[in-house]
Amino acid sequence: MIVRPHQHWLAQIFVWHGSVLAKISTRLLLNFLLSIAVIVMLPWYSTLGIRFTLAPFSILGVAIAVFLGFRNNACYSRYVEARQLWGQLMIASRSLLREVKNTLPEDPALSDFVRIQIAFAHCLRMTLRRQPQSATLARYLSEADLQQVVMAHSPANRILLLMGNWLAVRRADGQLSDILFHSLNNRLNDMSVVLAGCERIANTPIPFAYTLILHRTVYLFCIMLPFALVSDLHYMTPFVSVLISYTFISLDALAEELEEPFGMENNDLSLDAICNAIEIDLLQMNDDTPVPAKMMPDKYYQLT
Amino acid sequence: MIVRPHQHWLAQIFVWHGSVLAKISTRLLLNFLLSIAVIVMLPWYSTLGIRFTLAPFSILGVAIAVFLGFRNNACYSRYVEARQLWGQLMIASRSLLREVKNTLPEDPALSDFVRIQIAFAHCLRMTLRRQPQSATLARYLSEADLQQVVMAHSPANRILLLMGNWLAVRRADGQLSDILFHSLNNRLNDMSVVLAGCERIANTPIPFAYTLILHRTVYLFCIMLPFALVSDLHYMTPFVSVLISYTFISLDALAEELEEPFGMENNDLSLDAICNAIEIDLLQMNDDTPVPAKMMPDKYYQLT
Amino acid sequence: MIVRPHQHWLAQIFVWHGSVLAKISTRLLLNFLLSIAVIVMLPWYSTLGIRFTLAPFSILGVAIAVFLGFRNNACYSRYVEARQLWGQLMIASRSLLREVKNTLPEDPALSDFVRIQIAFAHCLRMTLRRQPQSATLARYLSEADLQQVVMAHSPANRILLLMGNWLAVRRADGQLSDILFHSLNNRLNDMSVVLAGCERIANTPIPFAYTLILHRTVYLFCIMLPFALVSDLHYMTPFVSVLISYTFISLDALAEELEEPFGMENNDLSLDAICNAIEIDLLQMNDDTPVPAKMMPDKYYQLT
Amino acid sequence: MIVRPHQHWLAQIFVWHGSVLAKISTRLLLNFLLSIAVIVMLPWYSTLGIRFTLAPFSILGVAIAVFLGFRNNACYSRYVEARQLWGQLMIASRSLLREVKNTLPEDPALSDFVRIQIAFAHCLRMTLRRQPQSATLARYLSEADLQQVVMAHSPANRILLLMGNWLAVRRADGQLSDILFHSLNNRLNDMSVVLAGCERIANTPIPFAYTLILHRTVYLFCIMLPFALVSDLHYMTPFVSVLISYTFISLDALAEELEEPFGMENNDLSLDAICNAIEIDLLQMNDDTPVPAKMMPDKYYQLT
Amino acid sequence: MIVRPHQHWLAQIFVWHGSVLAKISTRLLLNFLLSIAVIVMLPWYSTLGIRFTLAPFSILGVAIAVFLGFRNNACYSRYVEARQLWGQLMIASRSLLREVKNTLPEDPALSDFVRIQIAFAHCLRMTLRRQPQSATLARYLSEADLQQVVMAHSPANRILLLMGNWLAVRRADGQLSDILFHSLNNRLNDMSVVLAGCERIANTPIPFAYTLILHRTVYLFCIMLPFALVSDLHYMTPFVSVLISYTFISLDALAEELEEPFGMENNDLSLDAICNAIEIDLLQMNDDTPVPAKMMPDKYYQLT
Repeated sequence: MIVRPHQHWLAQIFVWHGSVLAKISTRLLLNFLLSIAVIVMLPWYSTLGIRFTLAPFSILGVAIAVFLGFRNNACYSRYVEARQLWGQLMIASRSLLREVKNTLPEDPALSDFVRIQIAFAHCLRMTLRRQPQSATLARYLSEADLQQVVMAHSPANRILLLMGNWLAVRRADGQLSDILFHSLNNRLNDMSVVLAGCERIANTPIPFAYTLILHRTVYLFCIMLPFALVSDLHYMTPFVSVLISYTFISLDALAEELEEPFGMENNDLSLDAICNAIEIDLLQMNDDTPVPAKMMPDKYYQLT
Repeated sequence: MIVRPHQHWLAQIFVWHGSVLAKISTRLLLNFLLSIAVIVMLPWYSTLGIRFTLAPFSILGVAIAVFLGFRNNACYSRYVEARQLWGQLMIASRSLLREVKNTLPEDPALSDFVRIQIAFAHCLRMTLRRQPQSATLARYLSEADLQQVVMAHSPANRILLLMGNWLAVRRADGQLSDILFHSLNNRLNDMSVVLAGCERIANTPIPFAYTLILHRTVYLFCIMLPFALVSDLHYMTPFVSVLISYTFISLDALAEELEEPFGMENNDLSLDAICNAIEIDLLQMNDDTPVPAKMMPDKYYQLT
Repeated sequence: MIVRPHQHWLAQIFVWHGSVLAKISTRLLLNFLLSIAVIVMLPWYSTLGIRFTLAPFSILGVAIAVFLGFRNNACYSRYVEARQLWGQLMIASRSLLREVKNTLPEDPALSDFVRIQIAFAHCLRMTLRRQPQSATLARYLSEADLQQVVMAHSPANRILLLMGNWLAVRRADGQLSDILFHSLNNRLNDMSVVLAGCERIANTPIPFAYTLILHRTVYLFCIMLPFALVSDLHYMTPFVSVLISYTFISLDALAEELEEPFGMENNDLSLDAICNAIEIDLLQMNDDTPVPAKMMPDKYYQLT
Repeated sequence: MIVRPHQHWLAQIFVWHGSVLAKISTRLLLNFLLSIAVIVMLPWYSTLGIRFTLAPFSILGVAIAVFLGFRNNACYSRYVEARQLWGQLMIASRSLLREVKNTLPEDPALSDFVRIQIAFAHCLRMTLRRQPQSATLARYLSEADLQQVVMAHSPANRILLLMGNWLAVRRADGQLSDILFHSLNNRLNDMSVVLAGCERIANTPIPFAYTLILHRTVYLFCIMLPFALVSDLHYMTPFVSVLISYTFISLDALAEELEEPFGMENNDLSLDAICNAIEIDLLQMNDDTPVPAKMMPDKYYQLT
Repeated sequence: MIVRPHQHWLAQIFVWHGSVLAKISTRLLLNFLLSIAVIVMLPWYSTLGIRFTLAPFSILGVAIAVFLGFRNNACYSRYVEARQLWGQLMIASRSLLREVKNTLPEDPALSDFVRIQIAFAHCLRMTLRRQPQSATLARYLSEADLQQVVMAHSPANRILLLMGNWLAVRRADGQLSDILFHSLNNRLNDMSVVLAGCERIANTPIPFAYTLILHRTVYLFCIMLPFALVSDLHYMTPFVSVLISYTFISLDALAEELEEPFGMENNDLSLDAICNAIEIDLLQMNDDTPVPAKMMPDKYYQLT
């Protein structure tokens, strides 16, 4: 995620880092070169009876804008929902620990429970980013628990089962009444909602045909654009063609980044920072030490 | 469902499998042939005083784009809701089993309960896809239960009743307090929400008139398009006409696939894979064996 | 509701039944005749200095398309919400009966309770469609209950009170603990949500001014369209004018049908079939007989 | 609120009452007069080198249409949410009384509780409309209660506190178990949601700048429109200019009415009728008399 | 927040305060001056073969309008969600205090609890606005509590823990049964939802690339606009160019204000006034004195 640098509005025209410009620069350059080729070849191919006007591209441009708007909406919704799910994890983690501390204030194993909770957040993050987990989880889980977790099809779900067991033992001991166990268990269910929600977003992309149809129409539109512009604009064709292409291609490329919000690209969610915040909050609530330092954006305003 | 192959952006222009191109190729070919016919016949029919300009089609094109955008939104919402319902089934299944294991850890019939839960997912899937169920369900249900299920108007609802009975017996025995029975019963209610939600999507299509109105206007628009383009573009008419037609017809065809998300087409939900994941997760949570292998996409990136 | 017949895409251009064509054919015919009159009178009125161009209608067309898109969205949302409410009734009905059967398995009056539940669905349906209720409800309710129900301002709400009484008697008897009564009572609250939601949709239309503004602009736009088209298209004016008018008027007319989803028109909800499904499911869950036959679409694919 | 009269589609073009026409007639008249002035002055100011074409207004028209569509959406959402909140009040009121009647069937003060509930609805309505409340509330509340209520910063919130006290007394007496008190208290929380939701809508308008930006662009657009139309349409300028202005200005004016849904204008919510329905339902549920008559629309189809 | 002054529709064209005009006046002035420069230089640069037509800008204008509409929607959603979260804080605060008063009516430390609740609202507000908190919170919290709060990574979360402790002490004392503790604890969870929701909005901006892409295209579009308009409009170019630029730039600037709804700009939320309302309501519910005066808008209709 790029933390917004609040630059002056004029300066923003020249910002490179964090925009999708780096990604689409090849395509824009090709468009620029094609425009120049079209200007040069115009006298030749117009003798062949090949001519273009802008009017049909106006119809096409409106249609593509409407459909790109729809796709951006769909991709951005995934990004927003993913962020909300991680917000719900923050809520459930804090509420669960607060309820446990309030109802079992003297429990000697509270710090263990805090560590299992922190492990859940890290495990979910690394599952979504397809990263190896054993080394990190070993910092928070006992050896026996770690074995169960890394063997499971859904490691984070196994951690939920461990948390449930921790509570169930205290219910069997008579330390937790059924109603309080029910209440705490509901917080685990909230975490289960977060887990399956994130899995759904990671495993079910937007129907692939949307991506294909829009890529194709956007690229073909941009390829034919210089032919249609040249008779009106002549020498100005490359500039206007690149500007229009930039508008369409950059929004198409950004939608693609947002579609998979758990990645590591510029506009993806900063899961590392969220996990870091959960860890700090839970440790502080239990007055445990040491508390890790808060993550800050790097010099490119980037937060992973 | 097509699992996205991450091809290069240029290569995507030529992808055939997984897009709706296969489905609409006849219509695009007809449009191409019509365009050629129009070029040939132009000198003849313009002597009859028949003439077309592009301006009225510009109005029509914008209107169709707006309305297609609306219909795509409505169809895509059904697809998203259907996927979310199956995500909720995953959540409810895991949470129910976790709660049962935590509150009845020593129950000798836990594996039976796991199998009834798995049967629910398969039964719902096969009901939505109108597939015969007896053979598959016989793997998970006792003979007596199977009889009740397959006779019912809504088989999946009958399985919910069986799960409720399983819990009610333990409440009557005094193994489950009322509050815990209430909590577990809420998970069954969550499954009931998934069941009726899927039935609603399967049985109530988007109002048929939307489909009709848009099909008609899109096809008539594409049929008249070559007549309007020919005076401006002449030899280029077929290419531009097919490009514009492709944009409109492909989005119309995709919306139609998404409208019924439980089908077996390229862009429909991969219910087989979701049921497979539920089965693996539940068996692993109970440490039951054997666990089935995880389903992977086939060589066309297709997951059913 | 029209159950979609899955006709070939070309055949759909000529479908009459189930589209709104029947309803708007007069308006389209008038538009056709007006277009012919405009062609005939063009030489005369252009001598008066009266002239039209298409450009201002292009601005108007875009604006109307955007606003029609908005209105379609609003009307379709009502349709979707109405269907979801009836889906929630299905969920609450099944869940309530399952919970009652699980917690009071031996109750001799279970069949009475099932019949009161069925009466609720039919009563809600007939209230929304403003149909006389006594004859139908007499099949499910005792004479004393029926009197209370038909006298009430909101009959369905009175049936909820009867269900609550049925449960309250068992709580007073000690058959139901407070926690289970609370749980069952929550299902009645769910039904109360459905009831008031349907009343809201039925009693609060979309602000009337939206309908008026769009009707007016759409009709005036279609009336002036032939004047604007004639100078460009001449003999082709009637065809293009009717096609554009069809696009706008049909979407306006469909929005009007969807705005009141509880009616009996082609694109309204099939409440009869939903009540029938609830009745079958509840009777089968209690193994009561006879179970009514499942309702099927008639030969015009119509399900009421 | 205007109850829709179901007039013939042609007659609707001439409906005056209930549309926003009355409100914007001055602006349309000014536009008409300006158009005539422009026709008259055209020869003069075109000699000064002042000329307009429609093309830039086409860009502006599309942009304004898109932004007006957005604002309409935002305003209509407030209207819909406000109506839903009042629907939730209906739900909570009925459910609360049903639960109280089922759990405390013999309570001698039930009628008092019904009256406090009715007072809440009226109090909320009069607070939102900034009407004096003492006279009306005195019909439902005891003298002591009335004093507390009218002195409070949020009178309706004070009534909730009174209802809570009524229930708390019965809990202290042992008539209500904790679980049932908890359940009834949740209904009060539902009413608290309605209260704060309505306060939010009433106190937080749509950001004022939206209103300003759109008013300005719409009015400037309509003022410059005749200049741009006159060279194409000449004598027809006033009619087309007024039609386009009507489309934009009327939707802008309607959005403004819907933005504050608790007012007394034509398209605002009929809070009087909703309060009347709540009063009738609650009295009938408790078999109290006399029940007030049901409110009907006046001769202009208006329901306040 | 600007409290809407209800000025006459004509007067609104000239309103300065509260619109974003102050912020974008430099950009509009630059656009005006550029337009004049273009008029002056037209004869010179057209001899170089540089020419522009409006048609390509029409395509670009539509696309930018669609994408700006999308971005406005996204930013406005954040604003609405932020306001709803604060509304939920109002709901949870009132409900929590009502439940506490009803179940612990004689508690001598009720006023302390009220003050901790008020501290939560102020603490959340000052955290979101990055203001120093110690001085304000010292008015509501004991010295020991204040120390814990200001040291925490999330001070408001620490206050929730304090509230939970207050309730947990009473549960341990036997004054609160488990079910009532569970119910009150759910209100704390509601506040936890508000807290994490606000943190999410404050810490996760809309993907920075959206802002960049739209700023760039809007500014480049407005810079090239005079060149495209000048051949059609000549002397009128500056006026039309500024009007179109105003429409696009002002909506872009407003979206930027709404994107961060917790700031202190004209169109941001009035958190001071909401905290003030919560404080008055809670103190009045407990009949505590003195109650602070209600905040009113200043002479510029501004409420912070």
